[in-house]
Amino acid sequence: MNFSYSPKVQELQERLNGFMDKYIYPNEKLYGKQVEENNRWNGVPPIMEELKQKAKEEGLWNLFLPDSEFGAGLTNTEYAPLCEIMGRSLIAPEVFNCSAPDTGNMEVLVRYGSEKQKEQWLKPLLNGEIRSCFSMTEPDVASSDATNIEASIVRDGDEYVINGRKWWSSGAGDPRCKIAIVMGKTNPEAHRHEQQAMILVPLDTLGVTIERMLPVFGYDHAPHGHAEITYDNVRVPVDNIIWGEGKGFAIAQGRLGPGRIHHCMRLIGAAERALEELCKRVQTRVAFGKPLSNQGVVMEWIADSRIEIEQARLLTLKAAYMMDTVGNKEAKSEIAMIKVVAPNMALRVIDRAIQAFGGAGVSDDFTLAAQWANSRTLRLADGPDEVHRAQVAKLELRKYR
Amino acid sequence: MNFSYSPKVQELQERLNGFMDKYIYPNEKLYGKQVEENNRWNGVPPIMEELKQKAKEEGLWNLFLPDSEFGAGLTNTEYAPLCEIMGRSLIAPEVFNCSAPDTGNMEVLVRYGSEKQKEQWLKPLLNGEIRSCFSMTEPDVASSDATNIEASIVRDGDEYVINGRKWWSSGAGDPRCKIAIVMGKTNPEAHRHEQQAMILVPLDTLGVTIERMLPVFGYDHAPHGHAEITYDNVRVPVDNIIWGEGKGFAIAQGRLGPGRIHHCMRLIGAAERALEELCKRVQTRVAFGKPLSNQGVVMEWIADSRIEIEQARLLTLKAAYMMDTVGNKEAKSEIAMIKVVAPNMALRVIDRAIQAFGGAGVSDDFTLAAQWANSRTLRLADGPDEVHRAQVAKLELRKYR
Amino acid sequence: MNFSYSPKVQELQERLNGFMDKYIYPNEKLYGKQVEENNRWNGVPPIMEELKQKAKEEGLWNLFLPDSEFGAGLTNTEYAPLCEIMGRSLIAPEVFNCSAPDTGNMEVLVRYGSEKQKEQWLKPLLNGEIRSCFSMTEPDVASSDATNIEASIVRDGDEYVINGRKWWSSGAGDPRCKIAIVMGKTNPEAHRHEQQAMILVPLDTLGVTIERMLPVFGYDHAPHGHAEITYDNVRVPVDNIIWGEGKGFAIAQGRLGPGRIHHCMRLIGAAERALEELCKRVQTRVAFGKPLSNQGVVMEWIADSRIEIEQARLLTLKAAYMMDTVGNKEAKSEIAMIKVVAPNMALRVIDRAIQAFGGAGVSDDFTLAAQWANSRTLRLADGPDEVHRAQVAKLELRKYR
Amino acid sequence: MNFSYSPKVQELQERLNGFMDKYIYPNEKLYGKQVEENNRWNGVPPIMEELKQKAKEEGLWNLFLPDSEFGAGLTNTEYAPLCEIMGRSLIAPEVFNCSAPDTGNMEVLVRYGSEKQKEQWLKPLLNGEIRSCFSMTEPDVASSDATNIEASIVRDGDEYVINGRKWWSSGAGDPRCKIAIVMGKTNPEAHRHEQQAMILVPLDTLGVTIERMLPVFGYDHAPHGHAEITYDNVRVPVDNIIWGEGKGFAIAQGRLGPGRIHHCMRLIGAAERALEELCKRVQTRVAFGKPLSNQGVVMEWIADSRIEIEQARLLTLKAAYMMDTVGNKEAKSEIAMIKVVAPNMALRVIDRAIQAFGGAGVSDDFTLAAQWANSRTLRLADGPDEVHRAQVAKLELRKYR
Repeated sequence: MNFSYSPKVQELQERLNGFMDKYIYPNEKLYGKQVEENNRWNGVPPIMEELKQKAKEEGLWNLFLPDSEFGAGLTNTEYAPLCEIMGRSLIAPEVFNCSAPDTGNMEVLVRYGSEKQKEQWLKPLLNGEIRSCFSMTEPDVASSDATNIEASIVRDGDEYVINGRKWWSSGAGDPRCKIAIVMGKTNPEAHRHEQQAMILVPLDTLGVTIERMLPVFGYDHAPHGHAEITYDNVRVPVDNIIWGEGKGFAIAQGRLGPGRIHHCMRLIGAAERALEELCKRVQTRVAFGKPLSNQGVVMEWIADSRIEIEQARLLTLKAAYMMDTVGNKEAKSEIAMIKVVAPNMALRVIDRAIQAFGGAGVSDDFTLAAQWANSRTLRLADGPDEVHRAQVAKLELRKYR
Repeated sequence: MNFSYSPKVQELQERLNGFMDKYIYPNEKLYGKQVEENNRWNGVPPIMEELKQKAKEEGLWNLFLPDSEFGAGLTNTEYAPLCEIMGRSLIAPEVFNCSAPDTGNMEVLVRYGSEKQKEQWLKPLLNGEIRSCFSMTEPDVASSDATNIEASIVRDGDEYVINGRKWWSSGAGDPRCKIAIVMGKTNPEAHRHEQQAMILVPLDTLGVTIERMLPVFGYDHAPHGHAEITYDNVRVPVDNIIWGEGKGFAIAQGRLGPGRIHHCMRLIGAAERALEELCKRVQTRVAFGKPLSNQGVVMEWIADSRIEIEQARLLTLKAAYMMDTVGNKEAKSEIAMIKVVAPNMALRVIDRAIQAFGGAGVSDDFTLAAQWANSRTLRLADGPDEVHRAQVAKLELRKYR
Repeated sequence: MNFSYSPKVQELQERLNGFMDKYIYPNEKLYGKQVEENNRWNGVPPIMEELKQKAKEEGLWNLFLPDSEFGAGLTNTEYAPLCEIMGRSLIAPEVFNCSAPDTGNMEVLVRYGSEKQKEQWLKPLLNGEIRSCFSMTEPDVASSDATNIEASIVRDGDEYVINGRKWWSSGAGDPRCKIAIVMGKTNPEAHRHEQQAMILVPLDTLGVTIERMLPVFGYDHAPHGHAEITYDNVRVPVDNIIWGEGKGFAIAQGRLGPGRIHHCMRLIGAAERALEELCKRVQTRVAFGKPLSNQGVVMEWIADSRIEIEQARLLTLKAAYMMDTVGNKEAKSEIAMIKVVAPNMALRVIDRAIQAFGGAGVSDDFTLAAQWANSRTLRLADGPDEVHRAQVAKLELRKYR
Repeated sequence: MNFSYSPKVQELQERLNGFMDKYIYPNEKLYGKQVEENNRWNGVPPIMEELKQKAKEEGLWNLFLPDSEFGAGLTNTEYAPLCEIMGRSLIAPEVFNCSAPDTGNMEVLVRYGSEKQKEQWLKPLLNGEIRSCFSMTEPDVASSDATNIEASIVRDGDEYVINGRKWWSSGAGDPRCKIAIVMGKTNPEAHRHEQQAMILVPLDTLGVTIERMLPVFGYDHAPHGHAEITYDNVRVPVDNIIWGEGKGFAIAQGRLGPGRIHHCMRLIGAAERALEELCKRVQTRVAFGKPLSNQGVVMEWIADSRIEIEQARLLTLKAAYMMDTVGNKEAKSEIAMIKVVAPNMALRVIDRAIQAFGGAGVSDDFTLAAQWANSRTLRLADGPDEVHRAQVAKLELRKYR
C-alpha cells in the first residue's frame, strides 16, 4: 500500500498546474466575455482555440487516453490526479482535449470503432478539430434504466434508418460538433441487454433537427449546450454502426466506466478549488468581531470539506487502480461507489463555500455557482445515484448468498 | 390548541387557489416567453399587468398588510396559508402585489414613514403602479453583520449626501422601479445599533448608477434583477430620511420580521408544489420493471418531504401567531428558527423532486430548478442561517443563565 | 389557528411540573439505588409505590385516558403537554400510572373489553395495583409486518389454546405484572388483516414461561424488563378473547395510535430535558479559553435542538388534534409522521447533549445515555421508521392517483 | 499509487482470519457467560487466558508495535488491515495483546521509558502478564482541552506526591491491572504545553482509591471497567516519572497518534462485521411480500455502508502511511481526520444494522449494540470530534495565510 504519486505523475502535475496558473485561471472571465460577444451561440470563443494550441505544444493533450497509440498512454491511476487539476476550471478540460462527451466518444471509437470510423471521426477528434455528442437519454422514458430507450435503428438495404427523440445531447450546440453517437434499438426482440446498438450520425444528415437547447439551473452552457434532437427517418450507411447490432449496451458499459470516473476526478478538482477559495475568503472577512475563519461553524465546514475531499479522492484512485489492474468489469462496484460519492461530496463542499461567500457565492463573480450546477447534473448523468447504489448493494449482497 | 384555519381564511384560500389554477399556472410559460421577447430587460411582460388587474378586481390584493388602513388587514396567521399559495409560482406574488422587496418596503413606510412619504411613495406602491428596491447589502463587507455596513449618509444643509456601493438591490432592473430605501451610517460614532439610518432615494437621482445585474446561479431574473448600485454623492432632501437618524437598525429589525416570515410562507408553497409534481411524475415513469412510485427510496423521499413540509408549516404558523399576539420582538427566536428551517426544507424537497425528474428537473421545463435557486438565496438573504442559529442559541442559553 | 394551551392545561402543567421538581427529579437516583438493593429483579423499589400514592392523592393519575368514565377525560391535545412533562424522567410515567405498555393495554380494555374483562383486569390496572405486558413481537419473523406473526390461538371447547414464542414483552419482569395481552392467529385462512386475535393470558397460567430478559444497549430495565416468553399449550377460557376472533389487527390499529403518540410526547420531554441540561452544562465548562457555550459549534447544536424540538412538538400536537377531531383513522398519516419524527429528533438532541457532556454523557451520572437507549428502541417499537414512512408515502401518492 | 496489500500482510490477514473463525467468534458468548459467572468483577474469564496462550503460540502477538525489538515490527500501514480484523470482535484485541489502553502505554514505555521502567513494567505488559490503565481525563474540567488538567505532581525529596481525581481510567477494573500512567502538572507556571508530566503509579500504592466503575450506556465492561480514581497524597519514587517534568504534553501527542489510529482500524472491522451481519440477516427475513434485501431502503443502507467503510479504510491507510513515511507530527491532520471519520462511520453502519435487525439489534444476541456503544465513546475518547475538526481546519487555513 503506497499513497505517493510516481515521479512521472508529479512532473505532469507540476506542468499542468503551471499551465493552469499561467493560462487558464487568468482567461476564465475572458472566455465568458467572448461567449457574450458571440451572442452566446454564434461561434466559439477565440481564446479557446488559442489555449488548445498552447496545450498541444506543451504536450498536455489527450492525457485521458490509456491507449498509447492514440493518446498519452497514461493509466487511469496516473491520469486521475491530472484530470483533477483540469476539473478546477470549467473551461480547462476542453483546452487539453479531455472534455466530455468527446473523451467517452473517442474511447468508444478506439475500442470498438472500425478502421474507417477511426480515420474519419477519431482522428479529427483527437486533433481537437471537431467535436461530438452522445445521444442516449430520451425525454419520454426513465432513461436511468437504459433498456427503456425507444429510439429505433432499422436496417433498410445498405442503410440504417434512425427514428427517435433524444435530449441532453451535450455539446451539440457547438459549431464544431460534427458527429453524434446515437443509441437505439436494432433488435427489440432480443434479450434486454442485446437489443441496442450505437451508430454514428453526422449532425448534418437530413432528418436531424436540433429542437432546442436545455438550460441547467439557468445556465445555457453556450456554445457547448445541451440539445434536444429529433432523428426523423435519418439514414446513414450500414457501416456507420459501431461494432455491430445489439452491441450498444456492451459499449455503453465500456464507455461509461472511464467516463464516470473522469467526471469524479474533475469534481474533486472543483471541490478543491472551492475549498481553497473558501479558506482565502474567510480570512479576509470580519463579522461580529472576528474573522469568519475563527468562527467555529466555518471551521467545521473547512474540516468536513477537507475530510470529504480526501476520502473521495482516495476512493477515486482505488477505483482507477482497479480499472487498471483487474479491469472495468471487476471494478464495477468501485466505479458505482465513486459515481455516488464524488458529485455529492462536491455539492456539499461547494455549497459551504457559497454560504461563506454570501451573495457573491450565488453570482458569477466566482465559479462556485456554476460548478455547483454542473456537479448537480452529475447526480443524474451517466446514471442517477439511486441506480449506482442499487448496483453496489446487489454486489454486496451477492457475497453472502 | 387548535389547528384549523378560520372560515374567513378557508374562503380566501379557495379563491386564491381558484385564481392560481385559472390564471397563474397557465401563464407561467407565457411570462417567460414575453421576457424573452422583451430581450429580457426591455420592459415588463404585458401578461403581468393583465394578471395584476384581475387580482385587484377580485380583491386579492395587498393581502400581506396587517394594517387595514392600507391593506387587507389580515393577521400574520391568517396571511400565512394565503402567502403559501402564492409561493407555489414564482410569478404569483407580484400578481397579488405581495412580492419582495416591495412588501417589506411598504411595511416600513406604513410603520415609520411620514405622511408625505406615504403620499408620495406608499400609495403608488400599494396601487402596484411603481416598484421599489432595498439597498442594504454591500459587496465589500460581510453584510451578515449589519453593523459592518459602510455607506455614508451625511447631512449637508437641507440635504443628505449618500455615498456607497450596494449590491443585491433586488428589483432595481424593473423599469417600474422608482425608489430605493438605502441603509447607511448617519452616526458612525454612536452605539453600534444606533449608527444607521434608512433614507428614500429616487432611482433617477443624480449619482445613482446601476452598475450591473447579478445572476443567481444562471438566472438573471429579468426584468426584476439583482442590481449592484453605486451611490456617488447622491443628494436628497432631508425629509427623505425615514423616522430619523440612527433609526436604521431599529427599522431593519421591524422590516425583517415580516419580510422573513413571508419568504418562509412562500417557500412552503414552493415545496408543496414540488412534492405534488414529484408524486405525479413518479406514478407515470417506469424503471427496472416497476413505477418509480413503488421504489422504496422514492417513497422515502415522499414521506420525508411530507414530514418536513408539515413541520415547517407548523413552525411558520406558530411564529406568525406569536408575531400577532406577543409582537415581533418577543417572536424573535421563532422568526429566526423558521428562517433557518424553511429554505433548507424547501431545498431538500425540491432537490428530491429534481432527482426524481432526472434531466427534466434541472431544465426549465418545470419550475423546480428555478425554485431551487431561489430557495438557495434565502439561506443568505435577510441573514444567513448561521446568524439566525446563533440568535436562537443565545436566547436559549439566556434561559439558564 | 391558535397555538396557546387552554387554562385547564396550563394549570395541570403547573401542578405536574411542581410534582416533578418536588418528588420525581430528587428521587431518580434513589430509585436506581433501590433497584440495585433489590438485586435488580427482586421486587419493586419502595419509592415507586410512595410516589404513586402521592400522585394519586394530587389527582395526577390516569391522565392519559380520554374516556372520562375511567380516566381523566382529557383529549389527546390536552394530554400531550402533560405527557411531555412526564417524559422528562424515565421513572415518572409509572408514577402517574401513565406508562407503557399499561396505558395501551388499558385503552384496549376500555374500548374493546367485555364488562367481565374490565372488572377483572382494567380496574386493578387503573388503580395501579397490577401491571401488564403486551405479547405481539416474535423473534422468528420480521414483526414489522404484523401479518407475519405466527403464534396460534386455537379454540378447543370452552378454551383457547395458545402456542408461540414472543419477545419484547416489556414489563413482564415486574413482580406486579399479572396479565398479558397476547396476539396470535385464530383464523389463519382469513383475509390477511382478519386472521389475528388478542387474548388475555394471566402470567401464572400453566405453559407460560419467561425465558429470559433482553437488554437494551446494556440496560436491563429492571424490574420492568423486556421478556422473551414461550406460550406452550397455554389454555385460557374462551371469554378471555378480546372483542372476538379475527379482531386482533383492528384492535392493534386502535391500540397503536394513542400508544405511538404517547411515546412521541414523552420523547419531546426527554429531548427538552437534554437540551436544558446541555445549556446549563456548557455555561460551566471552559475549553480553549472560552466557555463551551461560546463555541460556535455548540451554539449550532443548541439552535438545531431547539428548532427540532419545536417542530416535533407542533407535529405531535397536530396529530393529537386530528385524533381528537377526525379520529385515529383519519389521523393515520400524521401519527405515522410523528412516529418517525419524534424518536429521531430525540436521538439527535440527546446525542448532542452527550457530546457536550463528554464522558459524563455516556455514563449514568446523568439520564442522557439511558434516555438515548430508550429513544433508540422507539425507532423500532410500534413499527420501524421504514414502515411508517411507507405509510405516509402511500397516503401521499394516493392524492394524485 | 498502489492499493494492494503486500504478500506479508496478506499472509498475516489469512492467519488472523483463520484464528478469528476458529477461536474468537465461537467463544464470544462463552466469554460473556464467564464474566457473569465471575459475578462480573471477580476475576478474568478463563477463556481469555487460554486464547491469549494460543495467539502467542501462533505468533499473533504484539503485532501493534512497530519497534521490532519489542514487538512485531510491522509498520502502521501493515498493521492496519490486521488490527481491523481484531476489531471485528470486542474480545479479540486483548487476545492478541493489542488492546487499549495497554498498547498506548507500551508505546509510551518503548519510546520514552527508562531502562528500569521498561524492565519493570514494559516486559510484563508485552508478555500479557499484567495490564495497565491511563489516568488523564478528569471529571471536574473539560478534559478535551488537555491544558485544563488539574492533578498535581509535586516533587518532595526523592518522591513525587500526586493529588487529583481522574475518571475514565479504563481497564482499572481488571484484577491484572497493576500500573497506571498518570498525567498531571509538575510545572503549573511553565508554557501551557510544558506544564505537565506523566508518571508511573502502581495501583497498590497508598492513597490510590478506585471510587467506582462508570458504565457506558448500560454496559459496565467488566472486568475491564472504566474507573473513577482518586489520587490522594500518593507518593512514588522520582524515577517513576516518564522522560521528565514538563514532558507530559509531548508524550501525549506521541502516544495519541498511534492510539487514535488503532481505534480507527478496529472500528472499520466492527463496521465490516455489522455490514456482513446485516447482509446475511436481510436475506433471511421477509416483510410485506418480499425479502428485506429487496427493499430499496435496505439496499440503500447497504450501499451507503459499503461506500463509507471503503472511504474510511482508505483514509486510515493513508494516515498510517504518512505516519510511517513522514512521521506522526506531519500526519497530524490525517490522524485528526480519520479520528473524526471512523467512529461516525461505524456508528452509522452499525445503526443501520440495528435497524435491520429490529429488536434483536438492540439486545445482546448480536454484538451490534455493544459495538455501537463502544464506537460512541470514541467520538469522545482521545479528543472529541470537535477538537479534531478544529485541528484540521487550522492546518487547512494555514496553507493560505
